[in-house]
Amino acid sequence: MPLLDPKRTVAELKELRALTGDEHGAQRVAFTATWLKARAWYREKLQALHVEVAPDAAGNLWATLPGASPRTLIIGGHLDSVPNGGWLDGCLNLLAGLEILRRIHAQYRVKKPPVTVRLVDWADEEGARFGKSLFGSSACSGSLNMDEARALRDRDGITLPDALRDVGIEFDIVKESGAELKNAAAYLELHIEQGPVLLDLDLPLGAVLGTFGVERHAITFRGQAAHSGSTPMNRRKDAFLAAAKLAPEIYEIARRSGGGVCTIGSCTTKPGIVTSVVEECRVTLDQRHLDPVALGRMLAEARAASERFAREGGVTVAWERLWHIAPRPFHPELIALCDAAITETVGVSHRLPSGPLHDAAEMCGAGVPTVMMFVQSLHGISHNKIEDTKEEHLEQCVAAFDRLAEKTIGWIVARE
Amino acid sequence: MPLLDPKRTVAELKELRALTGDEHGAQRVAFTATWLKARAWYREKLQALHVEVAPDAAGNLWATLPGASPRTLIIGGHLDSVPNGGWLDGCLNLLAGLEILRRIHAQYRVKKPPVTVRLVDWADEEGARFGKSLFGSSACSGSLNMDEARALRDRDGITLPDALRDVGIEFDIVKESGAELKNAAAYLELHIEQGPVLLDLDLPLGAVLGTFGVERHAITFRGQAAHSGSTPMNRRKDAFLAAAKLAPEIYEIARRSGGGVCTIGSCTTKPGIVTSVVEECRVTLDQRHLDPVALGRMLAEARAASERFAREGGVTVAWERLWHIAPRPFHPELIALCDAAITETVGVSHRLPSGPLHDAAEMCGAGVPTVMMFVQSLHGISHNKIEDTKEEHLEQCVAAFDRLAEKTIGWIVARE
Repeated sequence: MPLLDPKRTVAELKELRALTGDEHGAQRVAFTATWLKARAWYREKLQALHVEVAPDAAGNLWATLPGASPRTLIIGGHLDSVPNGGWLDGCLNLLAGLEILRRIHAQYRVKKPPVTVRLVDWADEEGARFGKSLFGSSACSGSLNMDEARALRDRDGITLPDALRDVGIEFDIVKESGAELKNAAAYLELHIEQGPVLLDLDLPLGAVLGTFGVERHAITFRGQAAHSGSTPMNRRKDAFLAAAKLAPEIYEIARRSGGGVCTIGSCTTKPGIVTSVVEECRVTLDQRHLDPVALGRMLAEARAASERFAREGGVTVAWERLWHIAPRPFHPELIALCDAAITETVGVSHRLPSGPLHDAAEMCGAGVPTVMMFVQSLHGISHNKIEDTKEEHLEQCVAAFDRLAEKTIGWIVARE
Repeated sequence: MPLLDPKRTVAELKELRALTGDEHGAQRVAFTATWLKARAWYREKLQALHVEVAPDAAGNLWATLPGASPRTLIIGGHLDSVPNGGWLDGCLNLLAGLEILRRIHAQYRVKKPPVTVRLVDWADEEGARFGKSLFGSSACSGSLNMDEARALRDRDGITLPDALRDVGIEFDIVKESGAELKNAAAYLELHIEQGPVLLDLDLPLGAVLGTFGVERHAITFRGQAAHSGSTPMNRRKDAFLAAAKLAPEIYEIARRSGGGVCTIGSCTTKPGIVTSVVEECRVTLDQRHLDPVALGRMLAEARAASERFAREGGVTVAWERLWHIAPRPFHPELIALCDAAITETVGVSHRLPSGPLHDAAEMCGAGVPTVMMFVQSLHGISHNKIEDTKEEHLEQCVAAFDRLAEKTIGWIVARE
């Protein structure tokens, strides 16, 4: 019997789904009873391996298989889900990692593996309850804004510090979890793509180049309300017209950027009545790119276009930044190893950026050499009960991810 | 002393403003105490003329100066205003008409005027309380939809029939007011323009060609919600993109139509969040033209464009008609008389359509030969306390409107 058993991973994913999902999808929202039940189930699986298992100060759960060197390969994932979530998002990573731990444990039964291998279950990756994603990994990386996080409340008014205390976590010391990264030499994460790129290419697996940087703005055009019957077209100061011209323009901006995406997600109009020209129109613009220079150019082009459309229409425009994060390009050598592991497993690989953020972005930001592997999403959809991946692809991703882990161990050893 | 005194009209307009306005504007909302106060003030003015004054079954107030012929010239206006309305809208017409009645009364002191002259104060032109404009004139013309009107409620839940009963009007018989039109030979109405056309041309007065027909629709585009980070641009079914393309297109459609106007007054998006492509986008479209064929073409062009944009973006589009009314072109001979009266008074005239509706549209629809005269609006704005017209222009419009009345009496006599 081979040391790695990808079919077991698929069986365990189904076991977890039966334990913590319902007819609406996965219900493993962080810090809830269902999430604690998932963690208890997962710890039982780990116990058979005789690895050390311990939570850190931020509630992340670490399993450690000590190696000949303290230099550490970290494999990460998260058991928590959004409400009514998909069955694979986050836990696929962790259960594939568990299978890899088993393989390494079995392979190095007599002597220690050359490097230390750790599997981490990040706490509250999704941020479903408090609206702040990557809690555990950002506490660990040190990027968590403590003042903002301290003020977060759920819909019942409970603060994040109070909710953490209920599960035994002391908010003020969560950044002590950063000590876990002391010997970190590489970070690997497997994830379903959550988009349609691999599906469209009919490929099972891809090597991820990094997570997109994000520029998120609200753009408000202001013109003049005027009667829809008595105001000639050439006398109008139509805020909607100026805002609307941005919609096709951002497609051009994205196209020119070479790989970026731009989205107008909402539009509101005032007074917003059928008999008046629009006085005020507010749209939100979300722009993402892997290259910080290209991201900056997309932003500048959108801003210039909005000013041109405002001028053309005799209206004004104002921008307000809602949020931004820098791109996190992954480690080029690890990307190459990921590509090789995929090619060796399924014959062909593809490199693609990640639009959504992942815990890997925090590890990358903390200076740990990082790469992710994506497996194809059916429907290209995630955060939804219909999220799914072919079983054949699930098995392939476990095998390819294991190859990547082995190559990365070799890479760490070679760098020492 | 001349028989017509336009300065008196300006003085009476100011008197009415002081009596029924406040710092927010005119407050003569139909069927309220302030409106009744305005009517009582107006009836006092009429009493000096010894004309017959009587309300009809719909609450319209008729003043009648009998002539040698029962054939009747009707001059119309309305004392009611929107809340916080302008000081001229509706009552300028009526007080100019009052001055003309005085002139005719004085001129024909010995013998009767050749035709009967009637001045009507229409009830609830604005529809401010029940959201249905032209109540009194549509009851009189017969176009009022009784079932719809019976169900109208104000914001306190009071029905229109109950509110009418409070001021002595029996809803079920309001259409008996149609008998007032038995001998109607022509209908004249003076109004402030409520738009910027005469202001831009620097002209005091214009002859109105008719009221625009209106096509009013809600247009809903439906695509697919998708993650703003993980969905490539070429995979999107972006409902906002398709809707937004309509905004510049309706300006082209209006330009090609030769005199029509098109307005997108509101836009809503679902899910309407910054991190998702828009799944559903609903806009309202209001289209107006004086020519029914051109109006139909504007509608067909907008529909075809929306279907093209939907197809281009892989989304669907559905149209829902909210309201429509046919254009009401005024009588060509009366338009010519109006032009002549203006030219004789101020040297130059201009012909223009009316975007907003007026009671004249109801009289026109009832088959009464109709024309309106517009006087310049400062700021091009109405339904607002800043609504205003230069005093010089107010005096000129009374003089020109009186000339039009005299010409129309001659026209009625000539047609008999």
